[in-house]
Amino acid sequence: MSSKTSADNKKKLQVAIVGSGNWGSAIASHIGEKVRSSGKDQFEEKISMWCKEEDVDGEKITELINRTHENKKYLPDHKISDNVVAIPDLKEAVKDADILVFVVPHQFLKKTCEEMKGNIKQNAFALSLIKGFYVDDKTNDILLISEVIKNTLNIDCLTMMGANIAKEVAAKVFCEATIGTKNKEHSTIIKSLIDSDKFRLRFFPDVEIIEMLGALKNIIAMIAGFSEGLECGFNTRAAILRLGLREMIEFCRLYHKESSYEIYLESCGMADLVASSLGGRNYDSAKKFVQTNKSLKEIEEEDLNGQSLQGPGTAEEVYRILKNKNLLDRFPLLRDAHLICDQKIKPKQLTDNLGNHPEFQTNQQ
Amino acid sequence: MSSKTSADNKKKLQVAIVGSGNWGSAIASHIGEKVRSSGKDQFEEKISMWCKEEDVDGEKITELINRTHENKKYLPDHKISDNVVAIPDLKEAVKDADILVFVVPHQFLKKTCEEMKGNIKQNAFALSLIKGFYVDDKTNDILLISEVIKNTLNIDCLTMMGANIAKEVAAKVFCEATIGTKNKEHSTIIKSLIDSDKFRLRFFPDVEIIEMLGALKNIIAMIAGFSEGLECGFNTRAAILRLGLREMIEFCRLYHKESSYEIYLESCGMADLVASSLGGRNYDSAKKFVQTNKSLKEIEEEDLNGQSLQGPGTAEEVYRILKNKNLLDRFPLLRDAHLICDQKIKPKQLTDNLGNHPEFQTNQQ
Repeated sequence: MSSKTSADNKKKLQVAIVGSGNWGSAIASHIGEKVRSSGKDQFEEKISMWCKEEDVDGEKITELINRTHENKKYLPDHKISDNVVAIPDLKEAVKDADILVFVVPHQFLKKTCEEMKGNIKQNAFALSLIKGFYVDDKTNDILLISEVIKNTLNIDCLTMMGANIAKEVAAKVFCEATIGTKNKEHSTIIKSLIDSDKFRLRFFPDVEIIEMLGALKNIIAMIAGFSEGLECGFNTRAAILRLGLREMIEFCRLYHKESSYEIYLESCGMADLVASSLGGRNYDSAKKFVQTNKSLKEIEEEDLNGQSLQGPGTAEEVYRILKNKNLLDRFPLLRDAHLICDQKIKPKQLTDNLGNHPEFQTNQQ
Repeated sequence: MSSKTSADNKKKLQVAIVGSGNWGSAIASHIGEKVRSSGKDQFEEKISMWCKEEDVDGEKITELINRTHENKKYLPDHKISDNVVAIPDLKEAVKDADILVFVVPHQFLKKTCEEMKGNIKQNAFALSLIKGFYVDDKTNDILLISEVIKNTLNIDCLTMMGANIAKEVAAKVFCEATIGTKNKEHSTIIKSLIDSDKFRLRFFPDVEIIEMLGALKNIIAMIAGFSEGLECGFNTRAAILRLGLREMIEFCRLYHKESSYEIYLESCGMADLVASSLGGRNYDSAKKFVQTNKSLKEIEEEDLNGQSLQGPGTAEEVYRILKNKNLLDRFPLLRDAHLICDQKIKPKQLTDNLGNHPEFQTNQQ
């Protein structure tokens, strides 16, 4: 009894989802259900979801979502928990939130943060689900999504990455994810908010690595798609995933020399790479790129219904970093992915060249 | 000029392949081609392949292979290099060999070794491609394939494991493999014999772990097949592969506490697991088991054309070991795989229970 009273007295935490694409809608619905089923004492039941207004079949998308509890444009055929409320005004959606879940495409993040500045609660904290990173034009250094959020809004920012194809999360099939944070209090809150027997979380302090892996795997998933388009088979795809993971690890170690292998074997590492190379967007588009000879831009327009492909942009950024560090030859997969997207080399050049990967020159017993 | 003369004078090494199923035929052909293209100075061009005699469409299988250079029964539609000679008599096939490549089903290994005893060259050494292990009836200890070969024949035995689906190797698509050996001289010879730009090798001293991984991954591949049969999707399959790899690592560490993560990220670890869970025999049969309600025995008879499924037997052996060590609860995937094969639990019980994996109880930040 007394615990109920104390919970009642304690101010409940409000949650806002910043973004409403397929992943945004899926996680909003998951959070809505979790709060309703077991988080009512700790969280406000109503979840705000900022949703950039647009027209869908003659109706405003926010009105459509709030009327039908479905995001027909970005996550069709899946109901969104009806305590999730789509709000077209960004400032309105976030002003009372204690927890800000960021899930906008990374090219819109800076603008979104700028608009939120001065309009959020002082004690709020963020959780970023955004895959990708920026490269500073002058220094060629990596600028992480979580750092942009942290620095612009002056709040703590956790990250969540993992094998989480949105429509499968919406279908409530089992998955897991990795949370990066060094803040114990915030990790406890996020566990209450998201962890369930169908969506399991594991927590690690390596925020930067977790975030980099989430971006890098999109590049390797594209290569897996190229190889499938070329009908290379499972042995080659497995080799690409393994060599790709090696390059992802080496790339992260350029910045975090001492990182242990453990984090790379988490959902944010090996598992996300596997799921994305079985059938994520980047994989599917890359496969089609080989099969149809269309450009990735055309495929994006044809298949992604207004959403954007993250792989090619990240590949370009990684290429720039490696070139600047004079390390392109040590990362042939990350290098060639960009050259293929840019139509400078053919996908077959990459697969024909797998046997010359530096991995095979360094191991001579 | 002088190097050619010295090579000519040096006795060339003879190679015998012990076994001629799909993997045996594929590796025999690869070795035949490699020797012919760049190994003539070091190896005898003729490669012996022991082939248990049987009748195929009214013709002896050895005669059929030697006449058509194709193993129509076990590796149809792929030519075998014509310097590979199928020999029905085991003793005849191995008597002059310096290198014995073992690739028989593991249930026939002991008998095969017994028959070879006293009939091989004293300085010969072996390379085992056999996936599986034995469990000692009395001690419940693991007895590795390489140890059986080593102990019965009193010769050194290397092991080769990796993402090597036989028909893709036969189709000459890129793959890689891991060699386990502590013997530098033998590893140099095997590199000359097998390593090529389409079949890359990496060498490690962890013979026992490499061999255990090759057996264990068949169990996890079956679970991936069960989940696909249940239409669980890519997130779940990725989680199964990751949790499965964790259990494989923990299982190996019961015997090799100090093993580093590195070996588990080689072709014998993560990559073989991925390839086998995309479409190996164990995966395919497990998927069909769920979809058709047939027993694995029936599926084996229908689909494998006389070859046998390694996963169910290994699952049973691993179950026995874990039960004996009172560790079943720490390895729910390895445990349940056997219970499913044995039709004691339904595959859905395993997938429904993924959220309770001990991995999620040990990480509480």
